[in-house]
Amino acid sequence: MIVEIISVGTEILLGNIVNTNAAYLAEKCAGIGLSCYYHDVVGDNEERLTGVLKTALARADVLLLSGGLGPTQDDLTKETAAGVLGRKLYLHEPAKEALTAFFKKRGMEITDNNWKQAMVPEGSIVVENPNGTAPGIIIEDNGKHIILMPGPPNELVPMFEDSVMPYLNSLQPGIIYSQTVKICGIGESKAEAMVEDLINAQDNPTIATYAKTGEVHLRVTARADDEKEAKKLIKPYIKELKGRFGNHIYTTQEEVTLEKAVVDLLLANHLTVSTVESCTGGMLAARLINVPGVSDVFKTGYITYSNKSKRKILGVKKSTLEKHGAVSEGVAKEMVKGAALFTKADVAVAVTGIAGPDGGSEEKPVGLVYIACNVCGRIDIKECRFSGNRMKVRESSVSAALSLMRESILAYYSEVTFGAKKS
Amino acid sequence: MIVEIISVGTEILLGNIVNTNAAYLAEKCAGIGLSCYYHDVVGDNEERLTGVLKTALARADVLLLSGGLGPTQDDLTKETAAGVLGRKLYLHEPAKEALTAFFKKRGMEITDNNWKQAMVPEGSIVVENPNGTAPGIIIEDNGKHIILMPGPPNELVPMFEDSVMPYLNSLQPGIIYSQTVKICGIGESKAEAMVEDLINAQDNPTIATYAKTGEVHLRVTARADDEKEAKKLIKPYIKELKGRFGNHIYTTQEEVTLEKAVVDLLLANHLTVSTVESCTGGMLAARLINVPGVSDVFKTGYITYSNKSKRKILGVKKSTLEKHGAVSEGVAKEMVKGAALFTKADVAVAVTGIAGPDGGSEEKPVGLVYIACNVCGRIDIKECRFSGNRMKVRESSVSAALSLMRESILAYYSEVTFGAKKS
Repeated sequence: MIVEIISVGTEILLGNIVNTNAAYLAEKCAGIGLSCYYHDVVGDNEERLTGVLKTALARADVLLLSGGLGPTQDDLTKETAAGVLGRKLYLHEPAKEALTAFFKKRGMEITDNNWKQAMVPEGSIVVENPNGTAPGIIIEDNGKHIILMPGPPNELVPMFEDSVMPYLNSLQPGIIYSQTVKICGIGESKAEAMVEDLINAQDNPTIATYAKTGEVHLRVTARADDEKEAKKLIKPYIKELKGRFGNHIYTTQEEVTLEKAVVDLLLANHLTVSTVESCTGGMLAARLINVPGVSDVFKTGYITYSNKSKRKILGVKKSTLEKHGAVSEGVAKEMVKGAALFTKADVAVAVTGIAGPDGGSEEKPVGLVYIACNVCGRIDIKECRFSGNRMKVRESSVSAALSLMRESILAYYSEVTFGAKKS
Repeated sequence: MIVEIISVGTEILLGNIVNTNAAYLAEKCAGIGLSCYYHDVVGDNEERLTGVLKTALARADVLLLSGGLGPTQDDLTKETAAGVLGRKLYLHEPAKEALTAFFKKRGMEITDNNWKQAMVPEGSIVVENPNGTAPGIIIEDNGKHIILMPGPPNELVPMFEDSVMPYLNSLQPGIIYSQTVKICGIGESKAEAMVEDLINAQDNPTIATYAKTGEVHLRVTARADDEKEAKKLIKPYIKELKGRFGNHIYTTQEEVTLEKAVVDLLLANHLTVSTVESCTGGMLAARLINVPGVSDVFKTGYITYSNKSKRKILGVKKSTLEKHGAVSEGVAKEMVKGAALFTKADVAVAVTGIAGPDGGSEEKPVGLVYIACNVCGRIDIKECRFSGNRMKVRESSVSAALSLMRESILAYYSEVTFGAKKS
């Protein structure tokens, strides 16, 4: 089945907001085996939206629309879609009740324009929207499926996951099931080369690679009669990937991020953590702290951007700074030593680098970053050379730091368990 | 003139990357007075790209394409566009030389597939790409303008600013000139209401509002024979907006961000700064440190996520934490007092809040955040109630903190200069 993603809204059209909905829907559709050939963006304009709908109906089976379902005069996606399909709108009582309840719960007065949102095209399936006022709508017409969803991502995403995705799955013979293997510490091209033979020989399941900053995701997708059968098809591939990538795999669960994997590893081993950042200036701590429940492991984060604060707070030696410079293996090492000593955290991680645009030299170019990780006294240091602008260098540094934390903790336990502990 | 934005690439189509190019180009086009009615995304597929190009040629004057100019077999934007317009490709000597120089400068061997990038359609204008290997191409055909640009944003953005925008400006009668007035500390709907009369009465110049997290941008755009004339048209509007929004305007320069405005204010007043963060976990420091040159003002950042670290590092009193809780005015106040005392920074800013999803209560719901700013002993505290998920609450908190820093520094100097200093 072919899907087309249509985003309606002047804000996207004028570049006021980035179209994250389209990327989200496209990735989800790919995950359940739908082919997508086009995305369209069109403003809140009846004539132009009508044209886009007609074109899409001629070339796709499923139209996924977002935006333009709200209470204002500008919002006309539903009215336009109903017009194209020759359907009248009527007041949908359960939608009206849901709307009333939504406002009542928040202690807000309903203004008259809101009732428009409870009007739905004849013969459509109304989809609940617990996070907003406009319900979603599914219209089946001549073998085509026209699906209208609200534009705000915090309404669209849960509606898609809870209602639209199961509906789309139900349209397909059998089911599509995906599992993602997430990898860190290996570059994109190397990871691709490591699975090239599997990709070339693929049939069912298929394997796709997705490069993210400092990570590679491998998605294994199987089509089968039911989920049990699909899982059975996927299982040997996951096993094969585990054999090939080993400890570089940080999760096989879709919802687990790299920072969550690190926090989970800390929690599982009852380890506390402190961060010390120079060029990343708090971004590493910020990513860790985006994991709910991190408070059980996070001790303290320091942003020691100046040499003075590196000396004063972490006890980095003046001589080390003078001899090797702030961006050096020696300083990174003293930073994590100091952080462990002063915060009494089991794990300390330090980042020092040149994010640019200034401050680079021939010997130490922009993008040179040292990351150190201290796990109960065992210290690993990594030298990285990143490309891109200031923000890109900083983002890459954060991903590399999370990756090193994982590696260091795993190495510490494998040595503690299987061998002599490194001094 | 009507522009259509066409993004070519399987990565965007499959949702692997978000289409930031389209948002960037759309905003820039709006800024120079071009109307945009559609964006399209299509994969690296000759047949489908041909269809998109034909449709766009029938409804727009300018086609802005990005992506698909690279060296691989997949990259076929140029070949497809040339085919649609009935033009042959030839080897463009200057482009070949630029390609050779690009590789030589980086000490890299040129592989044969790269030469493809120096092939250009007959009669086209070749646009230099100092940041990559594929040049841009402008084709003028039957009054239409087909513009091909590389996909990577770090190549596309400078090419658009340096070459394509001047070209687009040259196509229009007279010129379009915009100036942006950036506002913080006032909500979107209030800001809109404050300029509603101007927007309703607008002709030339026009005024448009853009809501960002914690900020509102007002863009004043004039059309005139030359830049001098346009600036003259804009001037009284900027003056009027300054009168209406006063100190809430943090800049009238396009490239100045809120964090840069704050850093500039610190630099201008020779003030140092330290940050103390709980729920934002380093995001505030990270935004300040994204400003090149911040090292002259930034002393230290602390991430005191736990109560223990608030007490140990900042000297927050146990009794205050017990009586009022970590998310309270009292704790925020003691955090900035402690930060100023221990780091000797002139300005200290603290954020403590409930980012969710857990930890909220009826009395203190998710989204409740206290921000305190201490300027040389003068302390301001702000209570905020944000909505959205954990990340959204944290982003809103950071913007509000930057906004409060500005307000507090300005208030400190106005009191120091004009009145008694608050104790």
